[in-house]
Amino acid sequence: MTLKMDANALMAFLRADFGQVAQDFVVERVAVEGLRLRMPVADRHLRPGGTVSGPSMFALADVALYLAILSRLGPVALAVTTNCAIDFMRKPAAGLDLLAEARILKLGRSLAVGDVMLFSEGNPEPVARASLTYAIPPAVPASPATK
Amino acid sequence: MTLKMDANALMAFLRADFGQVAQDFVVERVAVEGLRLRMPVADRHLRPGGTVSGPSMFALADVALYLAILSRLGPVALAVTTNCAIDFMRKPAAGLDLLAEARILKLGRSLAVGDVMLFSEGNPEPVARASLTYAIPPAVPASPATK
Amino acid sequence: MTLKMDANALMAFLRADFGQVAQDFVVERVAVEGLRLRMPVADRHLRPGGTVSGPSMFALADVALYLAILSRLGPVALAVTTNCAIDFMRKPAAGLDLLAEARILKLGRSLAVGDVMLFSEGNPEPVARASLTYAIPPAVPASPATK
Amino acid sequence: MTLKMDANALMAFLRADFGQVAQDFVVERVAVEGLRLRMPVADRHLRPGGTVSGPSMFALADVALYLAILSRLGPVALAVTTNCAIDFMRKPAAGLDLLAEARILKLGRSLAVGDVMLFSEGNPEPVARASLTYAIPPAVPASPATK
Repeated sequence: MTLKMDANALMAFLRADFGQVAQDFVVERVAVEGLRLRMPVADRHLRPGGTVSGPSMFALADVALYLAILSRLGPVALAVTTNCAIDFMRKPAAGLDLLAEARILKLGRSLAVGDVMLFSEGNPEPVARASLTYAIPPAVPASPATK
Repeated sequence: MTLKMDANALMAFLRADFGQVAQDFVVERVAVEGLRLRMPVADRHLRPGGTVSGPSMFALADVALYLAILSRLGPVALAVTTNCAIDFMRKPAAGLDLLAEARILKLGRSLAVGDVMLFSEGNPEPVARASLTYAIPPAVPASPATK
Repeated sequence: MTLKMDANALMAFLRADFGQVAQDFVVERVAVEGLRLRMPVADRHLRPGGTVSGPSMFALADVALYLAILSRLGPVALAVTTNCAIDFMRKPAAGLDLLAEARILKLGRSLAVGDVMLFSEGNPEPVARASLTYAIPPAVPASPATK
Repeated sequence: MTLKMDANALMAFLRADFGQVAQDFVVERVAVEGLRLRMPVADRHLRPGGTVSGPSMFALADVALYLAILSRLGPVALAVTTNCAIDFMRKPAAGLDLLAEARILKLGRSLAVGDVMLFSEGNPEPVARASLTYAIPPAVPASPATK
């Protein structure tokens, strides 16, 4: 099994197609075993008390696994999140970046499934855990007419 | 069963304690049966193609059920989301507000559970469905010394 | 929208194709709005203390929604459960049958999504709540050669 | 961190308190890192086509994590499953035992969270993945009067 996109290619894809969120994330490592995504925590991610908001953690998990799938399928694919189950287990530490460790558990023709652990940098105990499913659209052969 | 907070009280609570997100939501109806929350969709909620982002839908579901719980318990409680399972079923219609219909299924001493249906305004078919669990901290009797 | 299978047809399907579990369930009502399935609680469903086991409640929710999908698609379809999120909220009452109220929220070409509420008969407060996703295999046109 | 129950103690607990299901499971390994539980697949676990039923896989995941929690807390605790999210990813291989690898992600005072991977013995790709939450009742000090 080989990867079709490396960290630079994934970041370029994010900037081109998801400009609004690209500044929130940094791909730190991508391999067949999984992908590590960093979220440099900024004021816009916080809730009262300095904790990172639930939607920000959801976004981190979702983007991490989405990029892991793209790294395998290449930029053609337009996977769509169909389901997410997320457990919020600990309050993220104030002032620390969040790291997501995403791994793909199944990459089928029409569905991909994976899970993600979220950590405050340097803390071994996860702040959250998520599993997500993506629908993968049927492959459309590129034709000169549609380019 | 009576409600301890009405729509105005809930909106005042949001503005005071969650200023960053208060502008995203409008409580439209609150009753024992459930709460309706509107998200006036703005550019910051969108993804390429004009669709509402997953984190925005997650936030709408989470805030709707959180406010439904507050309407029963009053502003003292500080419930924390511990779990969410969400199904994204249809692409939200471009240019339409999202509406959340939240209902509480269990309001126990330490856990509250409920579910939420999300709709593009005017469309009967839900765009998403979520169930969420909240941990409710032990009630702390107010004492003069801590006021 | 019309139904392709009524309660009798669904029960006949269960007995023919799922003989091991058919005795556990009775279809009480089937309509476009949803399906009600009864589980006459027997000793084999119980855990210590007289409560119904988690796997038995999971099975009730899964079969109820599966039959609701069949009622729409007909017996050709072989839907497969891909995901379930279930909340156990109250201890089922000892000595009472369980009732499942299942409804389909999306019936797409490749995925179906729905949710189910479980009740101890006569009690208005749900004992459990589940949402489930099913993968629907591509329709295979019947041909004389394969019959 | 030390374990309060080893594999033999957990099996004795299952036989004493959950006699109906004890014959379905064998604790193969228990450590702080996690617990491995085997389900010797028998006819009663099967569905048409020789595949293991969803409720049987749910039960395997639930019991595996429940025993992992008991191995930490000891037999006093009576944890109750409050939530499960499960993904069914591949059809279990016919004629092979199922193995569950359970790990605890959080063991708080009132809630425990963990996840479980299910495998057909000898196959590296998981057939299912589950995350579960348990409510842990407040510790009741043993008193001579109640013994």
